[in-house]
Amino acid sequence: MATATTEPNDLHNETNTWSVYTKTRSTINEQPLDNDELDKLTRYFHASMYLCLGMLYLKENPLLQEPLKKEHIKPRLLGHWGSDAGQSFTYIHFNRMIKKYDLDAFVISGPGHGAPGLISNFYLEGLYSEVYPNKSEDIEGLQKFFKQFSFPGGIGSHMTPETPGSIHEGGELGYSISHAFGAVFDHPHTIALTIVGDGESETGPLATSWHSNKFLNPITDGAVLPVLHLNGYKINNPTILARISEEELRSLMLGYGWTPYFVEGHDLESMHQAMAGTLEVCVQEILKYQKQARESGKVFRPKWPMIVLRSPKGWTAPREIEGHYLEGFWRAHQVPLPKVLTDPEQMKALETWMRGYGPDKLFTKEGKLIPELKELPPKGNKRMSANPITNGGVLRKPLRMPRFQDYGIKVDKPGSTHGPSMNIFAKLLRDIVKDNPTTFRVMGPDETESNKLGEIYKAGKKVWVNGYLPEDEDGGNLSPTGRVMEMLSEHTVEGWLEGYILSGRHGLINSYEPFIHIIDSMVNQHAKWIEKCLEVSWREAVSSLNILLTSTVWRQDHNGFTHQDPGFLDVMCNKSPEVVRIYLPPDANCLLSTMDHCFRSSNYVNVIVADKQGMHAQQSKSRSMLTPADHLQFLNMEDAITHCTKGIGVWQWASNDAGEEPDLVMAGCGDVSTQEALAATALLRHHLPELKIRFINVVDLFKLIQHGYHPHGLKDSEYTALFTSNKPVVFNFHSYPWLIHRLTYNRPGQEHMHVRGYKEKGNIDTPLELAIRNESDRYSLAMLAIDGLTKRLGNKGAATRQALLDERIRSMNYAYETGLDPEHYTDWKWPY
Amino acid sequence: MATATTEPNDLHNETNTWSVYTKTRSTINEQPLDNDELDKLTRYFHASMYLCLGMLYLKENPLLQEPLKKEHIKPRLLGHWGSDAGQSFTYIHFNRMIKKYDLDAFVISGPGHGAPGLISNFYLEGLYSEVYPNKSEDIEGLQKFFKQFSFPGGIGSHMTPETPGSIHEGGELGYSISHAFGAVFDHPHTIALTIVGDGESETGPLATSWHSNKFLNPITDGAVLPVLHLNGYKINNPTILARISEEELRSLMLGYGWTPYFVEGHDLESMHQAMAGTLEVCVQEILKYQKQARESGKVFRPKWPMIVLRSPKGWTAPREIEGHYLEGFWRAHQVPLPKVLTDPEQMKALETWMRGYGPDKLFTKEGKLIPELKELPPKGNKRMSANPITNGGVLRKPLRMPRFQDYGIKVDKPGSTHGPSMNIFAKLLRDIVKDNPTTFRVMGPDETESNKLGEIYKAGKKVWVNGYLPEDEDGGNLSPTGRVMEMLSEHTVEGWLEGYILSGRHGLINSYEPFIHIIDSMVNQHAKWIEKCLEVSWREAVSSLNILLTSTVWRQDHNGFTHQDPGFLDVMCNKSPEVVRIYLPPDANCLLSTMDHCFRSSNYVNVIVADKQGMHAQQSKSRSMLTPADHLQFLNMEDAITHCTKGIGVWQWASNDAGEEPDLVMAGCGDVSTQEALAATALLRHHLPELKIRFINVVDLFKLIQHGYHPHGLKDSEYTALFTSNKPVVFNFHSYPWLIHRLTYNRPGQEHMHVRGYKEKGNIDTPLELAIRNESDRYSLAMLAIDGLTKRLGNKGAATRQALLDERIRSMNYAYETGLDPEHYTDWKWPY
Repeated sequence: MATATTEPNDLHNETNTWSVYTKTRSTINEQPLDNDELDKLTRYFHASMYLCLGMLYLKENPLLQEPLKKEHIKPRLLGHWGSDAGQSFTYIHFNRMIKKYDLDAFVISGPGHGAPGLISNFYLEGLYSEVYPNKSEDIEGLQKFFKQFSFPGGIGSHMTPETPGSIHEGGELGYSISHAFGAVFDHPHTIALTIVGDGESETGPLATSWHSNKFLNPITDGAVLPVLHLNGYKINNPTILARISEEELRSLMLGYGWTPYFVEGHDLESMHQAMAGTLEVCVQEILKYQKQARESGKVFRPKWPMIVLRSPKGWTAPREIEGHYLEGFWRAHQVPLPKVLTDPEQMKALETWMRGYGPDKLFTKEGKLIPELKELPPKGNKRMSANPITNGGVLRKPLRMPRFQDYGIKVDKPGSTHGPSMNIFAKLLRDIVKDNPTTFRVMGPDETESNKLGEIYKAGKKVWVNGYLPEDEDGGNLSPTGRVMEMLSEHTVEGWLEGYILSGRHGLINSYEPFIHIIDSMVNQHAKWIEKCLEVSWREAVSSLNILLTSTVWRQDHNGFTHQDPGFLDVMCNKSPEVVRIYLPPDANCLLSTMDHCFRSSNYVNVIVADKQGMHAQQSKSRSMLTPADHLQFLNMEDAITHCTKGIGVWQWASNDAGEEPDLVMAGCGDVSTQEALAATALLRHHLPELKIRFINVVDLFKLIQHGYHPHGLKDSEYTALFTSNKPVVFNFHSYPWLIHRLTYNRPGQEHMHVRGYKEKGNIDTPLELAIRNESDRYSLAMLAIDGLTKRLGNKGAATRQALLDERIRSMNYAYETGLDPEHYTDWKWPY
Repeated sequence: MATATTEPNDLHNETNTWSVYTKTRSTINEQPLDNDELDKLTRYFHASMYLCLGMLYLKENPLLQEPLKKEHIKPRLLGHWGSDAGQSFTYIHFNRMIKKYDLDAFVISGPGHGAPGLISNFYLEGLYSEVYPNKSEDIEGLQKFFKQFSFPGGIGSHMTPETPGSIHEGGELGYSISHAFGAVFDHPHTIALTIVGDGESETGPLATSWHSNKFLNPITDGAVLPVLHLNGYKINNPTILARISEEELRSLMLGYGWTPYFVEGHDLESMHQAMAGTLEVCVQEILKYQKQARESGKVFRPKWPMIVLRSPKGWTAPREIEGHYLEGFWRAHQVPLPKVLTDPEQMKALETWMRGYGPDKLFTKEGKLIPELKELPPKGNKRMSANPITNGGVLRKPLRMPRFQDYGIKVDKPGSTHGPSMNIFAKLLRDIVKDNPTTFRVMGPDETESNKLGEIYKAGKKVWVNGYLPEDEDGGNLSPTGRVMEMLSEHTVEGWLEGYILSGRHGLINSYEPFIHIIDSMVNQHAKWIEKCLEVSWREAVSSLNILLTSTVWRQDHNGFTHQDPGFLDVMCNKSPEVVRIYLPPDANCLLSTMDHCFRSSNYVNVIVADKQGMHAQQSKSRSMLTPADHLQFLNMEDAITHCTKGIGVWQWASNDAGEEPDLVMAGCGDVSTQEALAATALLRHHLPELKIRFINVVDLFKLIQHGYHPHGLKDSEYTALFTSNKPVVFNFHSYPWLIHRLTYNRPGQEHMHVRGYKEKGNIDTPLELAIRNESDRYSLAMLAIDGLTKRLGNKGAATRQALLDERIRSMNYAYETGLDPEHYTDWKWPY
């Protein structure tokens, strides 16, 4: 075998040498700008670039009205220069379109680390000073505006919640396009100018989100105009899309269903012409497609325009500094002259560079942008920075909620009847969809039907703008005007939902429980966004992010080990208590009450865990496999509302402590887990009737944590009134058992708390066998209780324990022999 | 505005009606198969299809040698039929190529739920019976083979670890291509036949993994042949790629850098010809490109071939059942005739269908595949099911490890000198790269340089097969023969690494700590894979998955709140204790010792948390911002090895309890957190010298959990010998504090354990300010200690507490004024 050459010559990409920048190349050969407009755009752009450098470097002397000195410079230099110019350039040019076509638009900045490029614009157009009056449009305000950037007590280097005009921070990459689509769904007149960083374009979530165009209805939704900003480099590497040939890149975008337009170069004047001409073509196309669809009333999928903007990284910086490339190279990613404080040459270079933009000609002596430039951007809410969508709570109206009580299931006696909890909730959901036809959407990767929510389709089908077949009539439930959105990318559907609620609407995502981990990081980021919004006085509350987890671990016995992971709750519990809420309703009426509460709430991440099927989806004498097995129902509507309002409580009907101090507390949290805990209680009461057992159910998980750690946390006195401080507690938990110990760690009597849950013991199982493997089944729970009372129960306890153990072994053997669980398990009801 | 039409006619996609299947269409118009070969392929395929149905339905009567009765059928029907036929078809045809071209190949099944399609083949070619002798090639073995599928105690419906020939379960979608690439890197003679499900193709991780071709060296790496298997439907929806036009799909693949070949249809005979011809072209192209590169010694990026196979979902099933479409529709996704047990018509249909494949002519009466078909597949290790790559531990050789002690830093006195821990480790890493030139790779999203590991580039640069520019000479560190792999997709680099180690090699992934959450779910799945492998006797151990988390929460003060999330440890702690290991080495020598241990280990997921910089990357009198600030160093090499071997221990040099019972235990876990705990100890000893303090450092996190819950857990006696059972413990933890409570929940004295860590309080900060916000700084820790000893310390304690509080306030104010931390913080050393 030949040795591989390390000569890069064999791999030279002729298309993308620096020479690509030396001549402007563009798909559109027009010269729409006259000299006056060209000059103004250039000066406005320079004003923005000047502000960007000011944010990165200066704490004093904001307009360089005196020579630059060390004491004017921030002691710690932070921030990113790399994509500032390209983003600002794009923004300024889109301003021109807004004015010319009277557009309604806002901006999403994918490469969030280039925030100065946009924040500088928000300041220039006055919005920043309107929102933050002390960052006024004068020398003093400018000094504060500069200093606060990446400074303790100030604002970060992303498009953080403190930044008006932003619904997308860009701290984590990958979600710009899905957020943009989410924000324009049901906003038919809005265009989301969406800048995609070329680093971001390598991420999976972004890569697949290009396909969002197959879910956009040109009649009832707005439009997204992506600008793929190829500046060539990430932190320390070239980017993939910047180095493939233009032919490949064009194919890729065509393949994603977009019409790509290219604007490439370095020379500002010709780049202005190219960008102006190209944006105009794009806007005209968008308006044309919308008109065509809206006038004909016929939905089609246009090959929407998008722009590839290839401008050098760190554009308008010096090309070389001290023998190293700066403009057009990865060295321009962060602070381009990092040694200004210690290296007089760099200080000099910075001053020359900054003065090169001509701040004295762009701003008045008082620090105001000169009037002729001030005229350039749109006014009022036409400014992208001021679009109400970017403070979506302003637009938000409460959902029209049907009376959830009307959907309840009749429960005469607790634990004696079955009902399909999720199907019952689906009816409520159907009517929410019906009553809120333009402000509510349901998202899911591909599982809404599987999750027993198919009833929704009577009110709103699945959005599909990607070709129909005759077969689709046969239960396909597809429609271009649907209200349910499914794509097998948790990232994309979550991004859509986040964009949808951040822009003032409502929604729900439903997912198999295990695969919600795929978007751990997205939900983390959303929770962080919301938490910061709570600290920003002008941000109005947005709808909660409602995450319904179903097809849960205890009913993934048949899909196997890979489908068993209830650990999303652990991830969520680490987020801010001001933001996170977790509910595990045990039955249908509790699910209805919980969901009603969640849909009315705002500024939370609500996680609701409820399985789609009760006992067993197996064939037994009376049932066929595909009939969903129903849940055992515990509470009538009145009791359910009371219980859910409290969030935790004693189920007197299942207890026999008769208000006295019990011998044992049995607790359940989660539908399946509660049922097993009840069955364990019944076993104990059968075998050991003298035992006084108190039964507790937990709906609102944060009730368990100490008051002060979470707003829902019980006071210790309330907690011990339920759990006692000295009696053994057997707690059967839906998820990993340790989470309960984490939540109750400093509670009185914590040493008596014995928790069972899923502990990563699974394979291809039956439901009962799966529970047994994790010692979370009725027999194991009852045995655990006896173990905590050995002395008191004596020989009778030991005999009972043995009987339970025998029964557990018999159940396991039965499963191995038949593939089924015994009917006394699948048909179990509360016997008292 | 016009009302949107619900008429789907406007969206009809002419290309993709059912008619696409009625005539075979293919890029290649060849008829390479003669009638005899055609007939054999068809019968072999039918044998495979028969086995698939047998796995789904039968527990007895495996060859239908008697009429099908209810008692032959499994009582619970589980499994997936949808993609079985297409996968089997592809596999069988690639067998032909293996024989013709003497290829070395294995298969990855993206749509894992179609496992019967491949498992049936593994059985037919004899491998399954070799590995599992009781699943022999006779009636009895076949009966067991059928019954075990999706049956308790048996195998799941994916390509689980129990399945020989598999390194990719496919339980979670999205990783087929990245796993395939990982497995062929440095395996120049191997081809990974990689079946991508069209559901999977919608996921983000898969979408961006197509770009892996820009990182494959045709001289030193093997090849991946993707087969995008468009069967049209997910669980309940059409798939995006199945409904876009062929023109768009072709563009998409060209844009990703592949050469697509299309094979589409339904008629088996012509499909055989089309697939045979197309695969032959693909294999010839792969071999041609490899030859060209290898003979010339010049690396280039070929436009590698890939296949779009469009076959109906549920192919070879009846087209309609009971008035509903089955073949070619989403109803064929799972068990196609779900009511066979209760519906005699369905039972009849099943029997007719199964007999239609002609089992009596395919198998002998004894249940053996007839000899002329038995001749068809390759033999021995040429069978894809037997490729040693799929049991990578067989191929694995231990890393050549330099003596890590030689890289240590000299530490004369603990806590008095600084050193760049990560840069020191980078030198060890460099030499591991050098000494293991074809069996070790380092992966990272884009951060290896930022993470201070750039020293590696002296031994192996970054792999880049995607165009070079002159600028790359200026520190670009790119090479087609590199050993470091960076792409801004955590999913892709993690997938590569998993594929690389599962196929018998070694590696490391390094990432900023917060963004490792992006691959929570992937690592979960890998941990589950490894855990199951431990239960499979013939699976040889593979290298551990080593995850180095740096740029950690406490040094993300400047990047802000979005970059602060140390919660990956919580996710990992829920995985099986047999598999997961977590280390937080406090300094350079401990890091060296820990990494040495991890690289030598196997079958673990090792998570190592260590920051890339010590105090502060800020400008101070002596430092410029870009000089990485060094870590304080605590242990000389000998002590470090002892300490890391124990995993937890008292640091006598920092304690003043002189072997007696202390008044207070101070503990640190994590480099920055340990330093703050030490500084708190120093403050206490300064202000309250009479206080006897014991200082503990934890490297191996699972030492804290009770013995029995994890193999590393201390016995209670060992634990209390360190922490006591009744003295206050102040524990400063790197991550969220509750994890420590979860780990120590039932330890003696748990009620005296006070933990501090990150509690989601951050913004744009200084390091000390960030610690203070989370009460994890030296002042807050010392105050917490005093609070635990109020009675004992009396007035002096109160006065000290006030002094500490004042100092904390002064530090906060200093940060807000200057943007910096005080020098007594940044320059702090252990004063004793």
